[in-house]
Amino acid sequence: MIKVDISNVWGELSLADMLQCEQEVFDAHMLLSEGKGPGNDFLGWLKLPTFEETEEMRRIQRAADKIRSDSEVFVVVGIGGSYLGPRAAIELVNGSHHNLKKGNPQIFFAGNNLSTNAWLELCQLLEGKDFSINIISKSGTTTEPAIATRALLLMMDRKYGAKAKERIYVTTDSAKGALRQMATEEGYETFIIPPNVGGRYSVLTAVGLLPMAVAGMKPTDVMLGAARARKDMDIRSFENPVWQYAAIRNLLYRKGKKIEILGSYEPNFRYFAGWWQQLFGESEGKDGKGIFPATVEFTADLHSLGQMIQEGERNIFETIVRFAPPAKQVEIGLNAKNLDGLNYLKGRTLDFVEEQAFQGTLAAHVDGGVPNIVLQADEICADTLGELFYFFELSCGVSAYMLGVNPFNQPGVEYYKRNMFKLLGKPGY
Amino acid sequence: MIKVDISNVWGELSLADMLQCEQEVFDAHMLLSEGKGPGNDFLGWLKLPTFEETEEMRRIQRAADKIRSDSEVFVVVGIGGSYLGPRAAIELVNGSHHNLKKGNPQIFFAGNNLSTNAWLELCQLLEGKDFSINIISKSGTTTEPAIATRALLLMMDRKYGAKAKERIYVTTDSAKGALRQMATEEGYETFIIPPNVGGRYSVLTAVGLLPMAVAGMKPTDVMLGAARARKDMDIRSFENPVWQYAAIRNLLYRKGKKIEILGSYEPNFRYFAGWWQQLFGESEGKDGKGIFPATVEFTADLHSLGQMIQEGERNIFETIVRFAPPAKQVEIGLNAKNLDGLNYLKGRTLDFVEEQAFQGTLAAHVDGGVPNIVLQADEICADTLGELFYFFELSCGVSAYMLGVNPFNQPGVEYYKRNMFKLLGKPGY
Repeated sequence: MIKVDISNVWGELSLADMLQCEQEVFDAHMLLSEGKGPGNDFLGWLKLPTFEETEEMRRIQRAADKIRSDSEVFVVVGIGGSYLGPRAAIELVNGSHHNLKKGNPQIFFAGNNLSTNAWLELCQLLEGKDFSINIISKSGTTTEPAIATRALLLMMDRKYGAKAKERIYVTTDSAKGALRQMATEEGYETFIIPPNVGGRYSVLTAVGLLPMAVAGMKPTDVMLGAARARKDMDIRSFENPVWQYAAIRNLLYRKGKKIEILGSYEPNFRYFAGWWQQLFGESEGKDGKGIFPATVEFTADLHSLGQMIQEGERNIFETIVRFAPPAKQVEIGLNAKNLDGLNYLKGRTLDFVEEQAFQGTLAAHVDGGVPNIVLQADEICADTLGELFYFFELSCGVSAYMLGVNPFNQPGVEYYKRNMFKLLGKPGY
Repeated sequence: MIKVDISNVWGELSLADMLQCEQEVFDAHMLLSEGKGPGNDFLGWLKLPTFEETEEMRRIQRAADKIRSDSEVFVVVGIGGSYLGPRAAIELVNGSHHNLKKGNPQIFFAGNNLSTNAWLELCQLLEGKDFSINIISKSGTTTEPAIATRALLLMMDRKYGAKAKERIYVTTDSAKGALRQMATEEGYETFIIPPNVGGRYSVLTAVGLLPMAVAGMKPTDVMLGAARARKDMDIRSFENPVWQYAAIRNLLYRKGKKIEILGSYEPNFRYFAGWWQQLFGESEGKDGKGIFPATVEFTADLHSLGQMIQEGERNIFETIVRFAPPAKQVEIGLNAKNLDGLNYLKGRTLDFVEEQAFQGTLAAHVDGGVPNIVLQADEICADTLGELFYFFELSCGVSAYMLGVNPFNQPGVEYYKRNMFKLLGKPGY
């Protein structure tokens, strides 16, 4: 199970602070698990993880097998959670250079921007390649993915004609919406986003699982980690890592720590941090409240934001995600001339150096007045990924209820849309 | 010239506020240009851009031509500005998928982390490929790039033997340091980081120019844009975009806007934003002060951080970088069934939709209490890149002097290093 180390927050908080909020965490967790809080029609994600392979998971695996056999490229069309979830998973487990490696189809993400340059780049990357697409949208009318879908369908119609539909996979509502209707009329294979699961909590549905399966991860492995987390993190005490994380971040916020920086020492963690940023930012950033979720990639950013973390405004705390050491280790060699002065590390592993950099940074930042929460996870794999996803989702629900906001709506997202539709001349605006 | 639109900050500031700080901006600019402020031994970057091609630029172009002819892969070893500068340039101009396109060598970045996974991934990507490397470091003893260098040199020795040295390019101090000594002893080709140019202000030296040239950009084009900026942005009045940007961000900070979010509607802008984050974060984040530099990628993040920007804590302002429309435009097609409801956009360009999304978002965020600064640049190319780099560097110098800090040191970066060296058992610690 994920371990939360909170031994580096006591400069800022006291144990009494934490114990005092025990009832509050308990209430927030109850509100969530009994479905009595605001936004309680969006709690489907709580019970998604199961130890048993469901029929939907089997269908996902079969579709992925087909795509892996007939497609050099897989295009995932979606925005928000429909983009960040799958991308987070694939980059963390297969690496940010996954498209340069052999063995899996290349995976590109479309429909998450309105950039002409990005679209032309995608067209160039698809040229001469056999590809399939996965359209992910509850409604099918969100502007960015709808525009990308329209263009991709035209491209596929020209390339594959009547056979195009065998390469189109739709992840959408089970009954409602334009995309469901389109899929029914055209006969596309479909997967389901349950109506009670919002975008940023959808990664453990087909939204995340189909792209992950195409990338070579087993949906059953991801779900195993998530199901274990679901079971283990139901404890109602501070032994629960969810309680520790949710409580400490709220207490730090109340002491004026307005920015949480999520970081890792793995460059491939970048998009996972992006997924976390949406999960917490969109769940908590409302009613004039909410911790601002920022991200760093260490050690690179120790030579960037590191200065500000060490000596800038004291309105920051950090949450660092650690993974168990990789199975294959790399040793630092000897150099006779030793001009770089590294011979004192001869025979040490790179991972050993990384661990000392982490420890040294932790001590430096804590000394500098930046409390640190450390999350210790297992080594990077599909199972750990599932556990992390569920851990952060549950923590976010509990944390947002402690903050006193509805974790499951996003009323602020409508403002820009309304303005945009008016400017675009959309009928009815 | 870059235009700064400050018409969306007046909800928070008054014109009187701005005029009142005119003398202050003037003084900060003078302090910088006359070299009388703190850190004035690091002002070499001010005068780097020239309209004439220098001998160093010709040597960079020749080296790049050789690398482009004999290498499938180019590995850039560096951390901090030696990593973020070149990566920012290459991803913005050639696209984040540049390594999947034909025509240029693949370019990977190493020595910017201590991850075993990342190192093993690089080894896999280099397998069977002809490659050259560029080691960028003033000293040659910074832990991350030194470890990567040691391992790469060993790999090259095995692969190329005595001919390895023809594939090794060193960017370092002209006389001092371990890397200079190594290059002299081994006979590597070298390029210079002037002693009076710090890491985060080094992108317009060989640090940035050699990797950009390998990626197919002409150093003369980059420098042309930068030289124009150097000339145009020397005006001492609020007609200078640098004055506007530096003044407004400081005034907003004084009104409690503790977070600046830099964003663009181009996904390829991601690493440029990372370069900006280092430039401002490391220059200003000290003495308990400094605006926290965060980044977003629109429209993706309108479905992520957008909610928090619209309705979270009111401690945020945004700076949006706009580019002139791309030459090639893409039209939205007609769909007979119109299930997605997009036919009202038939015949419109994608770029038109993007512009309305930008305008709609701007209005929504400003209404929500988030002041916006808009920077309008020319279309994305090497010339614009040079201009943007110089604009932000100069703005950062002026802004940090207004804030009352030394923009050119980074004392806080030493703390983690000292701890780390102690833990690693480095002699002398």
